Amino acid sequence: MAKDNRKMVEAITSMEEDFAQWYTDVVKKAELIDYSSVKGCMILKPAGYAIWENIQAELDRRFKATGVENVYMPLFIPESLLEKEKDHVAGFAPEVAWVTHGGMNRLQERLCVRPTSETLFCDFYKNLIQSYRDLPKVYNQWCSVVRWEKETRPFLRSREFLWQEGHTAHATREEAQERTIQMLNVYADFCEEVLAMPVIRGQKTEKEKFAGAKATYTIEALMHDGKALQSGTSHNFGDGFAQAFGIQYTDRDNKLQYVHQTSWGLSTRLIGAIIMAHGDNDGLVLPPRIAPVQAIVIPIRQQADGVLDKAREISEMLGRVCRTKLDESEKSPGWKFAEQEMRGIPVRIELGPKDIEAGKCVVVRRDTREKTEVSLANLSDEVVRILDTMQKEMFERARAHRDAHIYDAHNYEELQNIAINKPGFIRGMWCGSTECEEKIKEDLAVTSRCMPFHDKEQISDVCVCCGKPAHKLVYWGKAY
Amino acid sequence: MAKDNRKMVEAITSMEEDFAQWYTDVVKKAELIDYSSVKGCMILKPAGYAIWENIQAELDRRFKATGVENVYMPLFIPESLLEKEKDHVAGFAPEVAWVTHGGMNRLQERLCVRPTSETLFCDFYKNLIQSYRDLPKVYNQWCSVVRWEKETRPFLRSREFLWQEGHTAHATREEAQERTIQMLNVYADFCEEVLAMPVIRGQKTEKEKFAGAKATYTIEALMHDGKALQSGTSHNFGDGFAQAFGIQYTDRDNKLQYVHQTSWGLSTRLIGAIIMAHGDNDGLVLPPRIAPVQAIVIPIRQQADGVLDKAREISEMLGRVCRTKLDESEKSPGWKFAEQEMRGIPVRIELGPKDIEAGKCVVVRRDTREKTEVSLANLSDEVVRILDTMQKEMFERARAHRDAHIYDAHNYEELQNIAINKPGFIRGMWCGSTECEEKIKEDLAVTSRCMPFHDKEQISDVCVCCGKPAHKLVYWGKAY
Repeated sequence: MAKDNRKMVEAITSMEEDFAQWYTDVVKKAELIDYSSVKGCMILKPAGYAIWENIQAELDRRFKATGVENVYMPLFIPESLLEKEKDHVAGFAPEVAWVTHGGMNRLQERLCVRPTSETLFCDFYKNLIQSYRDLPKVYNQWCSVVRWEKETRPFLRSREFLWQEGHTAHATREEAQERTIQMLNVYADFCEEVLAMPVIRGQKTEKEKFAGAKATYTIEALMHDGKALQSGTSHNFGDGFAQAFGIQYTDRDNKLQYVHQTSWGLSTRLIGAIIMAHGDNDGLVLPPRIAPVQAIVIPIRQQADGVLDKAREISEMLGRVCRTKLDESEKSPGWKFAEQEMRGIPVRIELGPKDIEAGKCVVVRRDTREKTEVSLANLSDEVVRILDTMQKEMFERARAHRDAHIYDAHNYEELQNIAINKPGFIRGMWCGSTECEEKIKEDLAVTSRCMPFHDKEQISDVCVCCGKPAHKLVYWGKAY
Repeated sequence: MAKDNRKMVEAITSMEEDFAQWYTDVVKKAELIDYSSVKGCMILKPAGYAIWENIQAELDRRFKATGVENVYMPLFIPESLLEKEKDHVAGFAPEVAWVTHGGMNRLQERLCVRPTSETLFCDFYKNLIQSYRDLPKVYNQWCSVVRWEKETRPFLRSREFLWQEGHTAHATREEAQERTIQMLNVYADFCEEVLAMPVIRGQKTEKEKFAGAKATYTIEALMHDGKALQSGTSHNFGDGFAQAFGIQYTDRDNKLQYVHQTSWGLSTRLIGAIIMAHGDNDGLVLPPRIAPVQAIVIPIRQQADGVLDKAREISEMLGRVCRTKLDESEKSPGWKFAEQEMRGIPVRIELGPKDIEAGKCVVVRRDTREKTEVSLANLSDEVVRILDTMQKEMFERARAHRDAHIYDAHNYEELQNIAINKPGFIRGMWCGSTECEEKIKEDLAVTSRCMPFHDKEQISDVCVCCGKPAHKLVYWGKAY
């Protein structure tokens, strides 16, 4: 932590003392969000929104590389449309906001503010898709959605949040399944490569799957406090929605067939994940690849002759290889250091009169505080190298932390013991019954996070809850 | 028009026959939008949304170059907040959608779905701004807004539309005025340079200004049918909102001062403007700089040996210099030509076996249908040159059309005569009274579009309506 100005930093609760308060402090002090007069709705401030812009840009590029096209659907869903698929409406109706008046008049039919847009896409596809030549449709939209949550927390759960929702229609079951998994992998690769956040890819249980889906897949990340955070989901609907909405196409043999559909979404919740996967007691730590500002140049004794000129010169030079900012405000260097740390800017470049004389500067990494003296002649190359190294090491550190917090439970006693004493993922076999899942949730406040793809080990042959024969490995955990 | 397939094109009404129907036909046939089950709300299809993405990218870049930062504010405005500025609420309350229920419960206070976000930004700034050091704030958001319109038309007027809204706060009156005009100029330059659409910059009259503004500035474009389209507006609020919301800062002398505010917005309405400023009887004509696809490669006799290979090769090559697509579907070349024309793709590249043998291809411009034989060796350079020329010539053509449709009226008889017989802008002096403005609107269905910045000519010294002394030149016109 920077020494000469503790005012800004002192206000942060340490994560060991109170993790929830630490999180709220970081969110506010790093100026990511502000509360609004609308209960449960946040204001995304420039520093927070800029992270979302980077997430959007990178994810959108990856989507488009797989053939995704962007569209925009209405904000409102007529009540009768929401009701067409019975599981879906049962899942969402209790938590939607209803528009009942337009201008001075009561509406003939209530409209809900979209909590998700499956029903709108189905209604659209019903007319759009006639023949096998119209398939597949691989559409996505970036928008906000509304869910009338009772308890809200910045980024993690709010009444309105920003997200993307992809909705696709395919000729065959196989193609729909392939797309479902493809998009889950796009999410997982993005989280690992760009957010430096390792995830476990797997399938949700019946109980935890999306309202109306045949199968839901998820990526689950582990936060500093050992809680899991569902970071993105991808659903295969089979032809359930197609049957409810009558979305049929004529195949090559001139027969009518139902389409097979998928949807997949990822939201600003991910910003909460970045904070809790990488942050520390001095604030936010942003992985370089997602950081809106990657390097900040902080002049020391900036009133001294030539310091600001040189600082501007190297900022401009660095600006060509990474997102760079120069802080030439009148605050003290120590204050600027503390701000850089709070905001999680990956590296700061300290440059004073003596450095300039010696043709060098000091580069300080946000994550490790490691200081490197760098010759000004090599600065661009060195900063790029340091950002790359930091990105890789942040991922490795997060993976090591995650792996160190995966525990095996072979029976209920072990499960209980781990759930109470060891925050993290718990691997435990499951018989497949909802009763066991519910008992575990009620007794231990632990839910099934997923049945993993890449971890098929049979750690025992009986259910961790009931002791009956079990073949499915489940990752259990407390979750956000 | 392409010859061998008229099916697609025949469905379009000619603009001379029925301009409104022509517009609707283009919007549908070029696959820009679809109607939704939600009355008055449109679906932006991939071809339409991609234009908006390009508008966003280019405008966002220009905004950021002037210091704008993006944020995201809540979708909802509590009724009591909307009511704080009296002119503003009077202007918007009659046309907002009201949320009255969240989940199963009636809300204690109704929330309107934002029709615009001045009140939310004011509520935010009230806490955010304390000292002169916190100024200026130059924030913008990209979002959708809702206005409960009775009559709707694709892009031009719909119950929900996409836009950006900038909201700024400044220490001084002068700085706010400067920002208001700066953003109007950003809009105008963007329209002229990117959309090839000349605009008239000016100020709105008292009657036509934004609800709650001290002054509203506008850019007005002329459509093919001689009607005006307001394409972007920028408002100076003075300290009116600041007083209503109590947004004060301590200045350098430690005195409390109200901030001065601005807002400025531009919406998907602009896509309607592109259609009506450039389209023709074969469909859309997109200015190259905004076109999602700038060049489409259409193979002739694509089954012939080597044709598809060569087409792929040149598509890849062209893809390095412009946004290129290859149409290798099984449709006939004539059908593909008609599609390219309907969708307004700036140039098509026709490539058949004989062309390949001769080492050349044919490049056809969408706007003029001009065909150029181009050696494959020079293709990239030539296509770039043709796109540049097309961009310039589209602007010149639109400007010539606009200038040919500006008429001077020196008295009411002339005004009447022009309003009835000559679609276009009417220049006429105005005494400044709302009565004259209202009389003209009621009698002739013509409204004051703006008092221009760059055209200060005194074409007479009496009001075109009442004959009393007049010093203000006004552009009048029928408007969308």
